[in-house]
Amino acid sequence: MMRSNLIILLVLLCAMTAASSQDQPQTSAAQAVNKAYSPQLLRELAALREAALGDDYAYQQVAHLTENIGPRPPGSPQAAAAVNYVAEELRHLGLEVRLEEVRVRRWERGLETAELVEYPGQAPGTTQKIVLTALGRNTPTSAEGLTAEVVVVRSFQELKALGREKVAGKIVLFNVPFDKQKASDGFWGEAYGEAVAYRGDGAKAAADLGAIASLVRSVGGADYRIPHTGWNQAAGIPAGAVTSEDAELIAHLATQGRVRMHLVLTSQNGPEVMSYNVVGDVKGSEHPEQVVVVSGHLDSWDLGTGAIDDAAGVAVAMETAQLVQRLHLRPKRTIRVIAWMDEENGGRGHEAYAKAHAAEFGNHVAAIESDLGAGHPLGFWSKVNPDALPLLQPVQDILRPQGANLVKMVDESPGADIAPLSKAGVPAFGVLQDGRTYFNYHHTAADTLDKIVPQELRENAAATAVLGYALANMTDPLPR
Amino acid sequence: MMRSNLIILLVLLCAMTAASSQDQPQTSAAQAVNKAYSPQLLRELAALREAALGDDYAYQQVAHLTENIGPRPPGSPQAAAAVNYVAEELRHLGLEVRLEEVRVRRWERGLETAELVEYPGQAPGTTQKIVLTALGRNTPTSAEGLTAEVVVVRSFQELKALGREKVAGKIVLFNVPFDKQKASDGFWGEAYGEAVAYRGDGAKAAADLGAIASLVRSVGGADYRIPHTGWNQAAGIPAGAVTSEDAELIAHLATQGRVRMHLVLTSQNGPEVMSYNVVGDVKGSEHPEQVVVVSGHLDSWDLGTGAIDDAAGVAVAMETAQLVQRLHLRPKRTIRVIAWMDEENGGRGHEAYAKAHAAEFGNHVAAIESDLGAGHPLGFWSKVNPDALPLLQPVQDILRPQGANLVKMVDESPGADIAPLSKAGVPAFGVLQDGRTYFNYHHTAADTLDKIVPQELRENAAATAVLGYALANMTDPLPR
Repeated sequence: MMRSNLIILLVLLCAMTAASSQDQPQTSAAQAVNKAYSPQLLRELAALREAALGDDYAYQQVAHLTENIGPRPPGSPQAAAAVNYVAEELRHLGLEVRLEEVRVRRWERGLETAELVEYPGQAPGTTQKIVLTALGRNTPTSAEGLTAEVVVVRSFQELKALGREKVAGKIVLFNVPFDKQKASDGFWGEAYGEAVAYRGDGAKAAADLGAIASLVRSVGGADYRIPHTGWNQAAGIPAGAVTSEDAELIAHLATQGRVRMHLVLTSQNGPEVMSYNVVGDVKGSEHPEQVVVVSGHLDSWDLGTGAIDDAAGVAVAMETAQLVQRLHLRPKRTIRVIAWMDEENGGRGHEAYAKAHAAEFGNHVAAIESDLGAGHPLGFWSKVNPDALPLLQPVQDILRPQGANLVKMVDESPGADIAPLSKAGVPAFGVLQDGRTYFNYHHTAADTLDKIVPQELRENAAATAVLGYALANMTDPLPR
Repeated sequence: MMRSNLIILLVLLCAMTAASSQDQPQTSAAQAVNKAYSPQLLRELAALREAALGDDYAYQQVAHLTENIGPRPPGSPQAAAAVNYVAEELRHLGLEVRLEEVRVRRWERGLETAELVEYPGQAPGTTQKIVLTALGRNTPTSAEGLTAEVVVVRSFQELKALGREKVAGKIVLFNVPFDKQKASDGFWGEAYGEAVAYRGDGAKAAADLGAIASLVRSVGGADYRIPHTGWNQAAGIPAGAVTSEDAELIAHLATQGRVRMHLVLTSQNGPEVMSYNVVGDVKGSEHPEQVVVVSGHLDSWDLGTGAIDDAAGVAVAMETAQLVQRLHLRPKRTIRVIAWMDEENGGRGHEAYAKAHAAEFGNHVAAIESDLGAGHPLGFWSKVNPDALPLLQPVQDILRPQGANLVKMVDESPGADIAPLSKAGVPAFGVLQDGRTYFNYHHTAADTLDKIVPQELRENAAATAVLGYALANMTDPLPR
């Protein structure tokens, strides 16, 4: 990482958030803060931070989830094992633990192979292998696969301009590059958003014009010929992601003449099976009915072992509970650890939680989610009432020495699984990691334990524990 | 790339070479140089450099070899197509072209899958997938594969200390990391050498103690869970390379308890088939019998498309001929372009050449090979008589503006395919590319066209063309 870029990013983000914090007159803000945080609370927050930065509990959890259990696609035996493991760990910490039912749809990756069978300059008797992976809930090809000409486009507009005549019966390839420069300049969210639109909606757009399969250039920054999988809107045609290298290969050859591909994607949409959100409470001593959610998602894609996406998020939430218990702290409100199920392939976990707990959302005083890996945390994305911002100042002050003191306001929920809570008005926070390399590994086979730097994971645990405990112990809940 | 590291590297290399060039008294050296290089030759060398830096011929050749033809393993239809393509191109340039027979052994990669079937903390009904690839000329498993406990060692010594009792019947994993830091500090050759010993000789050492299969941690710097294949000494047991991530996974689990793996490597050692070195001469006008070899290898591993290893080397050699012809230059000695066959999996190409041309080696006045990718060239590795060094000064002066002016003396042949020539006393040069990222992609599926920066390839063409033409036109051949 280039430190200079990070500094630029920090300056930009600070500038973007400065305005709102300067809105408040200094004196009334200081009074409100003094009222909200007792001296004891401030001491406890500092103690939590120090303990987190010296603890390897979170790392041990990620190691177990990724290496002993492995990939955890919804409905898989590994996901079931992970549910049991996390529940048992939280019980062991002394939490009140419930498994809350989530009916998930099993999806199993089958064979995924492709080769170019006709292209300009082709040597007699040869084909060119294409490296690709199926997108989630892919509509399978037959076992024999399909063969068709490939039409390469660089945008939805270009596809539309081609029209049904040139698209029907073909395989469409959306060759839209992930903007690595933008990501490494600090705008990874924007880079991801621009490209992921094609992963999400490409197959639908292609199917609407009669295409018989849809391929997207992998959404991510890897240049090691590995494909990035991910969710896509089911469109009734096979849908995959080729590597950036293979997208370039096909695009180059297509400028020279006709390119035909043989494509096999034999994934299976399995039955619905029962799975669970793991919900563990450190009960509040004064307001047990008031809940602060601290969360990550337990399911992962099947290609890698889901270390940065998102064993790290679950582990950091677990560590918050572990630290509170180990330091014998007594939160006034309930700190609720949630390990969400099915974030990746449908979001049934947060749907089920919203349905089961809708009546209690008024008593959910805040929700935190970590789902952007385990890189150095810069602070938090926040969807809160602007009046709440001054009340977060002590948290920022405590996290400033480790550089995690940003509070960046956003317009949408800062996490997929806490979106129903955020929509209901619950103050919502996403841990804002340095995500410049996150999308290099995101949804690939290379999302493995070694991608996590232990000290950075500790920093994430510190940030989450400090914010979570503060929200559970401030004199009054944040204004909604 | 960090420019500061490059500067450190340059300073180090300059310091290492400065001694030899300062040995010569300035006056006699200057006289010798003046005698060796006519003013016309110096003008022609400058013109070659300028033409190379503005030309895309080499890039077009790499693009065709990698994208239109594809991977070129010895004996494959793609290798045959590449032989014909290069021969036809060289004929088109006006060279006298011969295909010189090389009997190669076909080797075809089969299924290569593995999973851990027993390990500590394993969830019921699950396994852990292992990403690996077979090493060249692997001894196959049966179609059903084999299952055995994995023994992890970090050195030959550690293996030996375990002894036959603990190794017999097991799968040995040599978990020896490629030193990425050393490679990025400029010592990529040393980093590669340290680790590749295990790829080359690991299976033999394991088999000697009764192991039933041998795995090596991939030799290279990729951290995207892709395996690096390569040559290994046949030992009568299956031999593969797991990714660095999978090596770590297995090593971690093995510290916790017993780890058993199911391994399938069904490669096939095919029959011997006839292939060819492509040999194209720009005939010398004064001494046609005196030959300067300019070369790269045409075969590649099968996983990627062999762009940096070594379509780039072949293309740069072709470009030397193209530039000489296009600029209507008349070399005094013959410039011989050679596209070697079978560098990767046996070296039959240079063996055949040595056998066929042994009697002419006395008239081979120099040999150049490029087989370290297409990164920015720093200059040349050189195995020459030290008395030859002052005579290279004009070449260095002409390449100095592009930073390709190093001449670094080495003790062994600076290239595998020119080793027989070097051993016979022929002055031998290897293009010395900046290789800090070369081993990230080396022998992987990610060795593809996009890894080549067009401007850096042009710089390689310039360096090779200038040195090759100088050696062909100096008043006298370099002293041997």
